[in-house]
Amino acid sequence: MQKQSYTLKALADIVDAELVGDAGIEIEGLATLQNAGPQQLSFLANPAYAKYLASTAAGAVIVGKNNAEDYAGNKLIHDNPYLAYAKLSQLWSARTQCSHSEPQIHDAAIVSKEAEIGAGVIIGAGTVVEAGVRIADGVAIGPNCTLGKDCVLGEGSLLHAGVTLYHGVSLGKRCILHSGVVLGSDGFGFAPADDGWLKIEQLGGVIIEDDVEIGANTTVDRGALDNTIIRKGVILDNQIQVAHNVIIGENTAIAACSAIAGSTTIGRNCIVGGASGIAGHLTIGDGVHITAMTMVIKSLPEAGVYSSGTGVQPNEKWRKSIARLRQLDKMAARLKALEQRVKDA
Amino acid sequence: MQKQSYTLKALADIVDAELVGDAGIEIEGLATLQNAGPQQLSFLANPAYAKYLASTAAGAVIVGKNNAEDYAGNKLIHDNPYLAYAKLSQLWSARTQCSHSEPQIHDAAIVSKEAEIGAGVIIGAGTVVEAGVRIADGVAIGPNCTLGKDCVLGEGSLLHAGVTLYHGVSLGKRCILHSGVVLGSDGFGFAPADDGWLKIEQLGGVIIEDDVEIGANTTVDRGALDNTIIRKGVILDNQIQVAHNVIIGENTAIAACSAIAGSTTIGRNCIVGGASGIAGHLTIGDGVHITAMTMVIKSLPEAGVYSSGTGVQPNEKWRKSIARLRQLDKMAARLKALEQRVKDA
Amino acid sequence: MQKQSYTLKALADIVDAELVGDAGIEIEGLATLQNAGPQQLSFLANPAYAKYLASTAAGAVIVGKNNAEDYAGNKLIHDNPYLAYAKLSQLWSARTQCSHSEPQIHDAAIVSKEAEIGAGVIIGAGTVVEAGVRIADGVAIGPNCTLGKDCVLGEGSLLHAGVTLYHGVSLGKRCILHSGVVLGSDGFGFAPADDGWLKIEQLGGVIIEDDVEIGANTTVDRGALDNTIIRKGVILDNQIQVAHNVIIGENTAIAACSAIAGSTTIGRNCIVGGASGIAGHLTIGDGVHITAMTMVIKSLPEAGVYSSGTGVQPNEKWRKSIARLRQLDKMAARLKALEQRVKDA
Repeated sequence: MQKQSYTLKALADIVDAELVGDAGIEIEGLATLQNAGPQQLSFLANPAYAKYLASTAAGAVIVGKNNAEDYAGNKLIHDNPYLAYAKLSQLWSARTQCSHSEPQIHDAAIVSKEAEIGAGVIIGAGTVVEAGVRIADGVAIGPNCTLGKDCVLGEGSLLHAGVTLYHGVSLGKRCILHSGVVLGSDGFGFAPADDGWLKIEQLGGVIIEDDVEIGANTTVDRGALDNTIIRKGVILDNQIQVAHNVIIGENTAIAACSAIAGSTTIGRNCIVGGASGIAGHLTIGDGVHITAMTMVIKSLPEAGVYSSGTGVQPNEKWRKSIARLRQLDKMAARLKALEQRVKDA
Repeated sequence: MQKQSYTLKALADIVDAELVGDAGIEIEGLATLQNAGPQQLSFLANPAYAKYLASTAAGAVIVGKNNAEDYAGNKLIHDNPYLAYAKLSQLWSARTQCSHSEPQIHDAAIVSKEAEIGAGVIIGAGTVVEAGVRIADGVAIGPNCTLGKDCVLGEGSLLHAGVTLYHGVSLGKRCILHSGVVLGSDGFGFAPADDGWLKIEQLGGVIIEDDVEIGANTTVDRGALDNTIIRKGVILDNQIQVAHNVIIGENTAIAACSAIAGSTTIGRNCIVGGASGIAGHLTIGDGVHITAMTMVIKSLPEAGVYSSGTGVQPNEKWRKSIARLRQLDKMAARLKALEQRVKDA
Repeated sequence: MQKQSYTLKALADIVDAELVGDAGIEIEGLATLQNAGPQQLSFLANPAYAKYLASTAAGAVIVGKNNAEDYAGNKLIHDNPYLAYAKLSQLWSARTQCSHSEPQIHDAAIVSKEAEIGAGVIIGAGTVVEAGVRIADGVAIGPNCTLGKDCVLGEGSLLHAGVTLYHGVSLGKRCILHSGVVLGSDGFGFAPADDGWLKIEQLGGVIIEDDVEIGANTTVDRGALDNTIIRKGVILDNQIQVAHNVIIGENTAIAACSAIAGSTTIGRNCIVGGASGIAGHLTIGDGVHITAMTMVIKSLPEAGVYSSGTGVQPNEKWRKSIARLRQLDKMAARLKALEQRVKDA
């Protein structure tokens, strides 16, 4: 996948790094310190990997100012090696080639005559585009996607194979949707009636703003009346559930398998660890950090780090902890009685 | 999406409400109290929203008898405003138009000649219908679905785009399956053998009774020998996992991201909160309510509300709670020793 | 589905069991003790079901040596009835017929001329095979799948309908991928930048070794630089998330809805219960057994059984437990003070 090559000098210029060593060496790709070869560039961002500096076979390494002295080979010295690596990773990306064939609109795509298709749009085989859809310039859509009526896709967005948008979903510019993503499915709204549940039609929409990335098999339900909204710069990992009328603030990041129940609002710049659950109708403030597998059952208006869960133990110890937890109420009563008795004594 | 209009009188008649105010006003859709305009109908069901009554711009509001006095504008007075809203929501539903094009069976659908297709059936582009499938009258199937051999679909059911049914799945009448749903995949059955796992072929089926709704990316495995069964009126949210030979009783509702392990039976009229897990081979009785993120590792034969989990705390406090939890066994021993000592004193 | 019949003698030979009773009886399928009829074979593996032996209508039963005396009817006596049942289940499997039509490569499949297709390969309608894909002999692919550029599929593998492989995914021999599986989606890698998150292109791949089965809607992300690897004989249930650069060792079994965060290594022969979460950058040793819904936030290098979570309680008791848990720190202080006081007394 990584074929194009660049001189170390060219790479230094791209990320504005100080180059020490052989400026003309040809770099063909990126690799970890452990696995890099002489034509590859590596980086040191996490101190835990500093031990690999001595033995790496990398052609060059991106290091921070504080690590520059520790490495004698070719190097790019940068304030933020991780960010420099992120920028350079884009030079070798295969993603624009990955999930669609050459012809701009594949013969085996099924595109409504009542859809508007911009310039340079790629649509893969088996993809269905319904009437009223508007696709802006430079959008790339992989095979076997379905775009329901009246969807709007902003400039430069990328839909990998097998994405489904229900009718009326609005997607911003430069968004990336991974395979299996479903946007605009009905929110889970039912009224109890005498003979079971009566479906509440979900009449709202889904609005995804610019520069949002959504991971594989993540689902975002349409709103009941108002919209479900995911703001600019949000990144969602795989298999996340976003229920109806949730609002997620700018640049918030949510890790895989988390679930956000209906009508909850999450602020800007939050980080939600994987497999967390956030109950409905709550407010999570800006800058809140929720660690993995946390059970959020109340609003968290203030920035800070929040957690729950009991963490893994050997099964035998766990059984004791849990048994004791259930006796806690009695233990508290016994402690109180004892305090009273000692006090009275 | 919401275009058709009705007089307030017509709406009152549909839900059998008492109309107070301008019977002739034209209503073009539904909206929340906060966002409704003069051509929209709103409702007050949750007391938390009563504060918006004073300032709403809604053309009319559905209120309960107890709230009727609080609102001076046009109103529909109803015993159950939420249920009235649910009924009226169906007037503006876009779902029958959403995920399939006009032609009844799209030219780009691939339908076996050995399939039986009823009257008024809609099949979307890219959908594959295998031999032996029987589709009853009025079924609508979106694009890019796959219906394996010998599936049976009951009258009036709706499959959104991208649904997959394995062979022999049986679906009742008026069911709704959302995108990414998979029914009939193999249950997770393997026998330990000397050199690894030996697959146990899953020879049972999946039976979905009438009026069941299943959310996006939910999976229901086929049975090992007998069937996996979802009874009449069950509603399942997104990303739920139903393992082989599970039986879910009538009108039970399960929220998103819950998982039910193999051979567990859930009764009627249960409510399971989101991201809950129910272990295998258990029995959950009728009318059991399990709150969100609960870990169910024993049978719950009696109706009632059940919970587990520790709930979110600031990270520092959480760390202390967890450390103390692990010392509980020692604390209990110390308390006992102290009690003995005080008693002896 | 279960049509072919075998004499009991033939079945005994296949699993090398001792036959007692009518060797010539025709067996048409397998069934549970409760539901078996006179033309069906049942088995007793779990002692909990021994109570059904007396009343079963099965034509014959597979029993262990210890149970042989308890059943007077036709029987196959075997050291491992569960394993014998697993082997025989394969005689009645419908899966090779399930998710694809007859013609080897369906007219409505879209296969690149630059793909290499082996002998006896089946490709379903609507499936897209991109350039550079190599499919070995005997592979069967259901409808509506997408195989990105340069994927490699080993001999005899089976992809059910609606599977998506991104570019460059490598799949071993005899693997089974269920519907909705996504392999090779981007890992969740972003560097914090001044104005939001900068995407780190995911340049690694996904390697699935031989004899791996992956359940419906499970996702496996491609590596950031190195590969994500799933070793020989691993079995993954539905809706599992495997993040970038995870390595899962041979014959490990993971139940539904579990999530494994980035760069974690899991050893051989592990069992991970459903809905568990394993944090990133951890090492799980060989033979580790993690029970369902466990929160693994540290490495578990030693074999053994591990657990976490608080287990279900009636809601009222749970509320007390949780309230007490939060007072634990204070309780511990009170206990200590009391100990001091009693000691001083």
